[in-house]
This record gives sequence, C-alpha cells and structure tokens, in this order.
Amino acid sequence: MSETDLSPSIEEKDRTSGELDEGDRLKPEFVRAVLDAVEAGDAETAYERVEPLHPADIADLIELTPAEQRPDLVESIGSLIDGEVLSEMNDWVRDELIDALDPRQLAGMAAELDTDDAVAIIEDMEEADQQAVLNALSPDDRAAIVEALSYPEESAGRLMQRELIAVPEHWTVGDVLDYLRGSDELSSDFWEIFVVDPGHRPVGTCQLSWILRTPRIVSMTDVMKREQTLIPVDMDQEEVALRFQKYALISAAVVDSGGRLVGQVTVDDIVHIISEEAGEDILRLSGAGEGDINEPVRLAVRTRLSWLIVNMGTAIIAASVVGLFQSEIAAFALLAVLMPIVSGMGGNAGTQTLAVVVRALATNQITDSNTWWMVLRELRIAAANGTALGAVAGIGSYLIYGNGPLSIVFAAAMVINNLAAGLGGVVVPITLDRLRIDPAVSSAVFVTTLTDVMGFFSFLGLAALSGVAG
Amino acid sequence: MSETDLSPSIEEKDRTSGELDEGDRLKPEFVRAVLDAVEAGDAETAYERVEPLHPADIADLIELTPAEQRPDLVESIGSLIDGEVLSEMNDWVRDELIDALDPRQLAGMAAELDTDDAVAIIEDMEEADQQAVLNALSPDDRAAIVEALSYPEESAGRLMQRELIAVPEHWTVGDVLDYLRGSDELSSDFWEIFVVDPGHRPVGTCQLSWILRTPRIVSMTDVMKREQTLIPVDMDQEEVALRFQKYALISAAVVDSGGRLVGQVTVDDIVHIISEEAGEDILRLSGAGEGDINEPVRLAVRTRLSWLIVNMGTAIIAASVVGLFQSEIAAFALLAVLMPIVSGMGGNAGTQTLAVVVRALATNQITDSNTWWMVLRELRIAAANGTALGAVAGIGSYLIYGNGPLSIVFAAAMVINNLAAGLGGVVVPITLDRLRIDPAVSSAVFVTTLTDVMGFFSFLGLAALSGVAG
Repeated sequence: MSETDLSPSIEEKDRTSGELDEGDRLKPEFVRAVLDAVEAGDAETAYERVEPLHPADIADLIELTPAEQRPDLVESIGSLIDGEVLSEMNDWVRDELIDALDPRQLAGMAAELDTDDAVAIIEDMEEADQQAVLNALSPDDRAAIVEALSYPEESAGRLMQRELIAVPEHWTVGDVLDYLRGSDELSSDFWEIFVVDPGHRPVGTCQLSWILRTPRIVSMTDVMKREQTLIPVDMDQEEVALRFQKYALISAAVVDSGGRLVGQVTVDDIVHIISEEAGEDILRLSGAGEGDINEPVRLAVRTRLSWLIVNMGTAIIAASVVGLFQSEIAAFALLAVLMPIVSGMGGNAGTQTLAVVVRALATNQITDSNTWWMVLRELRIAAANGTALGAVAGIGSYLIYGNGPLSIVFAAAMVINNLAAGLGGVVVPITLDRLRIDPAVSSAVFVTTLTDVMGFFSFLGLAALSGVAG
Repeated sequence: MSETDLSPSIEEKDRTSGELDEGDRLKPEFVRAVLDAVEAGDAETAYERVEPLHPADIADLIELTPAEQRPDLVESIGSLIDGEVLSEMNDWVRDELIDALDPRQLAGMAAELDTDDAVAIIEDMEEADQQAVLNALSPDDRAAIVEALSYPEESAGRLMQRELIAVPEHWTVGDVLDYLRGSDELSSDFWEIFVVDPGHRPVGTCQLSWILRTPRIVSMTDVMKREQTLIPVDMDQEEVALRFQKYALISAAVVDSGGRLVGQVTVDDIVHIISEEAGEDILRLSGAGEGDINEPVRLAVRTRLSWLIVNMGTAIIAASVVGLFQSEIAAFALLAVLMPIVSGMGGNAGTQTLAVVVRALATNQITDSNTWWMVLRELRIAAANGTALGAVAGIGSYLIYGNGPLSIVFAAAMVINNLAAGLGGVVVPITLDRLRIDPAVSSAVFVTTLTDVMGFFSFLGLAALSGVAG
C-alpha cells in the first residue's frame, strides 16, 4: 500500500532541535507559541512551526492541545496531519478528529499506510464512516482492509501488515536481489524475507543481513533458517507480544489455518502493545478502567464509579462485621482506634502480594509447575512479615496503653490478618486466572474484602472472647 | 564478537512441538519428565529432551526448577547452557548459577555473545568473579566489555552493542555489498547501516531493505536518510526505551559526547526494558519492590516489611485521629461501624486517580502544557463520583438507621473525602515527579494517609460538631 520511498525525506529535520526537551516531549513554550499563532489567526506561522516535526510529535501536539482549541489547530496545520500522524495518535483524540474529517480525506490518509496502520484507524470508526472511507479507497486497498477487519479485534490478523516479501524455494540470492530492485510496487518496510513453497506456506526465513553477506549464486534454501516462529492469524495480540518478547523477534510470519502465509507482524507494532499490556494491569488493579487521560470525563466517571460502587458493597460487608461488636466498642472505644490499623495493614500486605502475582501471571512466569512453590513462597513471606508487624504492634501498644491482654489480641490479629492477606493475595489471582477471568481486574475486590473482614473479625472477635472489651 | 553463522542451525527444531503449551510456556509434563530423569541420575535422557529447546525455553526450564534441584539439572544438561541461555535468564536465577560456574567456562560463554548481552551477564558479578572472567577473555573482547562497564548502570552505554556496520560517505551500494560479502568477521545481527564521516560521526542511516532495492552503482549518500534518532551514550535506558517507542525504531546509533558513533542499540533489547519499566510501576505503587518471584524470600521480606512499617506509621497517624473522638464513639458506636467505609472509599478513589496519573507520567503524557488541565480533569471526576457515592451513602444509611443528621454527616464526609482523594491523587505524584522523586514509589503512602485522615476527621468531626454523637 505504501509507496516506496528510497530518497531521504526533505521534510524531516533534526529531531533533537529546539522543540523537544530532554525527554523527547514537546516543550511547553513551543506548544504555547503554536497555539498563540492559531488563536491570533496566523495559520501560516503555526504551519511553519509544526512542519519540521516528526509525525509522532505532531500527534503529541494535538494531544497536548486543549480539546476546545483542537479544531482551530487542525484547520491551521491541515495537510500536515497525514495517516502517520493519525496512527501515532491516542485513540480518543483520534476518534474525535476522525469525526471532524471528511471520509474522502481519511481514505487518502489510509491509502498511504500499511494495512496494519490503516486498519488501526478504520476499525474504531462508526459503521457509516467506515463504509464511506472504504468506498473511497482503491479496490485493492479496500479488499485488504475488509479482510483484516474480518479477523477478531486484538488478533494477529488485525495487527499484521499484508505487505511482505515472499520468494519461492528455488530462487538464489541473485534472483531475490533482481526481484527487489526490479519492482517499484514493493513495500520497503521489511526486515526479513520469507521463503515459501508452491502452496504459499512458509518453509524458511532469511534476515536481510544474511542476504547482504551472501554471494548471488547461493540458493535461498542454503541461506534461510528453516525454523521460525509462526503466528496464527487468530492469535490474541497479547500472546503475539509475549512471543516476540520471548524469542527477541523483529518480525514474524502470520499464517492462516491452512498454514499459508497471509501477512507479517513487525516489532514496532508490538512495542506499543507490550507497553500497553504491561501498563494496563496497574490501572485494572485499581479499577481505573482504561485509565487514559484523554478518555472523556463522562466515561471515566462511569468506569470508576461502577468500581467504587462494588467496593462500597464490600466495605459495607466489612462494616457489618464491625456492627456485630458495637456493644464491645461502646464499652471500650479504644478498639475502634486500633481496628483500622489491623485491617489497613492486611490490605497493604495483600496488595503487595497481589501486585507480584498479577505481574508474574501477566509475564507467563507462573505455570502448573511452580504454583505450589509460589503459594508457599508467599505464605513464608506473610508469616515473616506478620510476625514482625505483630511484634511491633503488640509491644508498641503495650508501651502506650499498658494493657497486656489488649496488646496480645492486637498482635495476634495482626499476624492472622497478614497470613490471610498473603494467602488471598496469591490464591485469588491464580484461581481467577485458571477460570480465565483477568486477575488484574477482579482480584483486588476479593482480597481487600478478605483483609477488611478478617482484620475486623479477628481483632474484635478476639477482644470479645478474651474479655478485654468487658 | 559473535561468529557469523549464515547456515541454518541444525540444533533448532520446531518450536511449537510438544514441549510448549499455547502460551509458549513449557508444559508441566515436560518439566516433570526432565526433572524425573535428572533425579533418576539419567543425565542422557534429560540432555536429549532439553537439547531441542530454544535458549529462552532452556532459561525458563531452569527458572521453573525448584532451587534445590537446579544444581543437578545444570550438571545433567551442562553444555546446553550457553551464553544465550544465560542472557535470557532471570537475574536472580542467573546470579545463583554464575556463582556455581567456573570463570573460564563463563568467559567462554561471554565471548560468544554480543557486547550488550555479555555486559548484562558480567555487570552483576562480584568484583573478583568479574576480574576472573575478564582475564579469561581475548584482549579485544575484554577491552570492549571494560569500556561498556565504564558507562553508568542502566545507560545506553551498557545497553548498546559495539558490533555494527559503518561505512564512509563516498561508498556506493556495490562497495557496501562487496565489503559485507568479503569479511567473515562482521556481526550478522544488524538492521541498518550507518554512514559516517571521516571523524566517525554519523551522517545518515540506511535500512537494509533500501540497499537491497537499489542498484550497485548508486552512492550511499543517495540511499541513506540524513535524519536519524541518535542516542547519547549516557542516556538512561528508560529514556532510550521511550524514544524507541515514540519513533518506532528497530535500531539506533549511539554516540559519545563528541558525536562519534560508538555502538548501536537494537529493539530486541528495548522490548525487555519497556515491559519491565511498564510493569515495575504496579509493584512500586504497592511497595513490593522489584517484585520478582525469583527474588530470595529474605530480600522480599526486607523490602516489603520496610514498606509495611512505613504504612504502619501512617496508619497510627490516622488511628490517632480516631483517638480524638473516643468519647463520641463510646456514646454512639455506630460511628465506628460507618467510619471505615468513608476512609476506605477515599482510599479506593485516590488509588484510581494515582494509577492513572502515575501511568501518564511514566509514558510522558503529562507535561507543563497540560498539568492544570489534568488537575481539573481529576477534580471534575472526583466531584461527580463523590456526589454519587455521597448520595448512595446518605440515602442508604437513612433507610437502614432512620437517623437524618447521621446520614447527612455520612454523605458530606463521603463527598469531602472523595474530593481530597482526587486532589491528592493527582497533585502528589505530579509534585513528586517535579522533585525528581519516583512518583510510583512514594505516592501511595501520602495519598492513603491523606484519605484515611480526611475520612476519619471529616466523618467523626462533623458527627461531633452536629451533635449526632451526643
């Protein structure tokens, strides 16, 4: 789909020049200067300033612009917003922009891109817009994108680009060089050459550096490596990312159910997924949904509020445990002072274990082979931490209040709740994972409910039993 | 450093065969079979089963083996553990293994690797072991590694490989091909060719695919792209990773302070860093330190316990707020039942905001240009959520207890604490980030202390003021 461009782009300038700070972020002065020009109606100045930027920086500029000023900015820098800029842009900001653009204009942008980037833009559009863009594309491009859209969301089929170099087994290195030099239609965004059999099934792969280092007369089958990591077209993108990571891949062939080569995935698309997937867990664990700062406030409220309401339900369950001991608390209000320490420390310990286990699950480090070892490991840590915290709690409270039985109850509850936290922190996410429920999303509710209930119940219950409260 | 190997490796077999499950993890049956053979003293069977595995899978196998069985496994599969396996291995497991291996053997493994992988293995060794391995290396390899070790830890200098292809400006594509084909010493792990001036400063870069598509007579300066992303040798690896991600790089030139080309960083090394850095925040935010499941229990206890002790201090501060209202609680124990709901909901809301902000900071999405917008955004969300939760709390508690003043106090405290949580959740991490303190490590303590103190104080204080408690 993309035109071959071997000449240096004259539009690109030095990227480390004045617009960026040391962290590759656009400097606030620069952003302000551009927006001032836009506001003053000086589109020409705005255009000139933005023109030297890399597409990724133009995307950043649009993201950093307050939503109400974006339409004016977009109008000023118009043609600088091409397909590359769109594909670098945050999903929410892009959706908003796409709504404002003409389908014909969008089709032009999509046609410049490799299938994977074009699909990323088109897949989020509304049905009608999608159809309008597809109609404006050339038949070839349209067929490619319609096919990509037929694969499930977040699968290798959506992620892959159809542009790739595949050559027959009987070719020599010289044949490949002649083929590559002879055709103007080929993509130049490839990192390996796939060798295929007559049924278009991959039989080997060849890094470009191997070809460059090999004389023309050598047969491709003598240069290629027969073993290669193949990606099934319906594989989930998270699995694809883990596979790239594990085998340090730069690109990989995508095959359909018949084993035929249908596309390739390149690592630059994977890098975004790895970062997203790894960063996502922190947001899920805290119930912040996607947690994207560009998500409209209305949607962020909806996601977070539903999580908070669930947590309110569990907080009420925990509070009802406290409710069972109202007479003890009325008789001895100090219990109400100490009880949040027990529940809170259990919550902290449980969250630690949870974070470790959720991360280990996400990176495929926990398998059937080491599940029990993992549970035992966390219990040992919980026992050590619980004992230490119990000792501190017991001795500290005795020094302050001089009430021996109370201090023993406080210390014992601390130990019990830490063990519950350690056990829950490892068993809950592993169990959810086995049930194919995302442990990052659901674990925290269960674990903090457990530590709250256990914290209140063990402390107040022991206090009631031991007669401290009487 | 690495020998050029253009022929297909006969050791590698089909990776999707019986040993792996659909998530590319070693099957428990396979691990058990290998360990059974090791235990039975049948080293030959163990070796034969492990031999077909990819180095990354051999590393996984060793990680999945219980620590006490590892020495026997290592003895059985001996020579299969090469430098590649070591460089794929978890740091903790590798350190343990390195202690058990002979420096001469390690030097042999290091010599097979590119500088970056060799450095990754050697940098974690103890001084004496490091020296022993360095002494056993060839002078060239030694010099390369000593130089790499002279750069700061986690800098581009440690991450880069010195092996790269650099050619002078006056060469043609044909010259490059002849050079590459003529020398056996060159690495074959490269994805672009750097064009340098006589002072060895990069003047342009050329993707291999461009060279393959260009006739021999064309000058390199006509194929190369002049603009390229250069990595300063002392740049922090996290910044390098963000730069790779932002500009979708496959490899990039590393330059010293004089602008001379000293190495290259390739994306396969970056992928690990992106995953680690993105995953790290969840562990830091929960005070789980590195959170590696292979970290010895003793060290995990130390890290987590010190965080728990800090949290105990803050829990005591919050509890002392409750202590101020003991007489109110003794008079009206229901206050003790409801107060953890107020503090807990604030904690949940604060954690949501914190997760979103920490993630946005880590991905460079928050700059001076949008800080205020971000603070306002979170306050708007907090106001909406606080109002909703306050309404639920007020109405719900009224239906249960029928105590109007109590319900109003409960609802008002909920709103106040949600606003405090939203404000703290965004201001604390951004402030810490400005002070160059890692917001992921320290934010949670401040925010949860704030929400606990504000929760107890607003609820109990309003209850005392309003006379509900009397």
